[in-house]
Amino acid sequence: MDRIYIYMIGTAGSGKTYLTQAFSDWLSFKRLNNIIVNLDPGAETLPYSPDVDVREWFTLEDIMLNYGVGPNGAQIIGADLISTRAIDIKDEIEQYDAEYIIIDTPGQMELFTLRRSSEVLIDLLDRKRSMIVYLFDPVVSKTPSGFLSLLFMSASSVFRLKLPQIPVLSKVDILEEEEVERVVNWSNDPDELYDELSGEGLSIELFHMLRDAGIFRPLIPVSAETGYGMDDIYDGIQEVFYGGEDMERLIF
Amino acid sequence: MDRIYIYMIGTAGSGKTYLTQAFSDWLSFKRLNNIIVNLDPGAETLPYSPDVDVREWFTLEDIMLNYGVGPNGAQIIGADLISTRAIDIKDEIEQYDAEYIIIDTPGQMELFTLRRSSEVLIDLLDRKRSMIVYLFDPVVSKTPSGFLSLLFMSASSVFRLKLPQIPVLSKVDILEEEEVERVVNWSNDPDELYDELSGEGLSIELFHMLRDAGIFRPLIPVSAETGYGMDDIYDGIQEVFYGGEDMERLIF
Repeated sequence: MDRIYIYMIGTAGSGKTYLTQAFSDWLSFKRLNNIIVNLDPGAETLPYSPDVDVREWFTLEDIMLNYGVGPNGAQIIGADLISTRAIDIKDEIEQYDAEYIIIDTPGQMELFTLRRSSEVLIDLLDRKRSMIVYLFDPVVSKTPSGFLSLLFMSASSVFRLKLPQIPVLSKVDILEEEEVERVVNWSNDPDELYDELSGEGLSIELFHMLRDAGIFRPLIPVSAETGYGMDDIYDGIQEVFYGGEDMERLIF
Repeated sequence: MDRIYIYMIGTAGSGKTYLTQAFSDWLSFKRLNNIIVNLDPGAETLPYSPDVDVREWFTLEDIMLNYGVGPNGAQIIGADLISTRAIDIKDEIEQYDAEYIIIDTPGQMELFTLRRSSEVLIDLLDRKRSMIVYLFDPVVSKTPSGFLSLLFMSASSVFRLKLPQIPVLSKVDILEEEEVERVVNWSNDPDELYDELSGEGLSIELFHMLRDAGIFRPLIPVSAETGYGMDDIYDGIQEVFYGGEDMERLIF
């Protein structure tokens, strides 16, 4: 079976877990077989029941107890332990007859994007059938400098994981309609962003180069709360895997 | 007194805490008055005794207990609580006759760079007298794509916090000499990096634009273990505040 692995990535509080649930529900409604994998050993309460759950093998509380470390240390150890369970995770996934595998990653983004463990897992599952849905936090994205900052964070994860990416503006239900338009507009027309950034220490030369380099990609507004944008994520995924475009071109 | 606030920023495990200690020791050795501020409520054992310590007001363990949350939630709440103690932190700092205030930030980078709390603190202390020492993790930096990924993370923190930055390659004692040379060389001569990146999905056009945009800055190799590079960090700081260059130009 041709599985597609979708990694939900974004900074803490950007809404990965709720988007995981909402997108899974949407796929199920469309009768598209899917399962959810939870990779966060520190997840407290999840709105969905994960089909595969790293907490089956370890939780942050276990690690704190067994390794005698505090929460900071436990998160790092937890991230690194994922690679030791990569084969188990793969085995469990393969017991399901599901085409879409939605993978919810740990709260702090760098626990997934910067630890070597994630590369091991991505390679073992199937790198060529994997992609990222990158969530832009709506509150951070509202300001010009916050938006630019998240744009660099998303570029960082692309270079690190070397996977194609669909950028989404998350939780649009908590923004005013004009705010959503404004942020989406920045992603489509970076010059508008520059006008609002002026005085913040960014040279026009650098800005034009970033713009021309294609680092700006159109943001898809989504809401797990209202279900808005789930079809656009799905279309984006189809485009990545069946759009006939060169995969490498899609990375950057 | 003209204080200088130095924020140590980098991903978890990049060596912020040990560099804080080593740079403080170096300043003291040069008879330059300095104090250390610990902003990580989850710090377990510190190699230095902080002069100002956020754990005086709250720790991650307290937060887990008092708010009934797990480690993930506690970190976010801890980051946000810093702003509620910003005035106390400032008061305590001002009790010292110290020119250099070295500020050690929480383990996970985004807890400091993306939370609104940090802006509140930076503004309250003194934005115009503040700068970042950004630590590149040596293990992640060793690979071309890891290096590029951290370069984007550092750019992200610059845009978010809008402060001048000195980029350092941390813990060079754990790298081979040739590895240090290679990474430092990438920062000085990006074309060398491109040759090694080939096949990783980065277009030459984008790469040239990044290069020409000045996103690459010479990395200062440092080691908290051997004390290597402390004088270079000091010179970098002098350059930022007394070099006569336009501050905004230094941001980007």
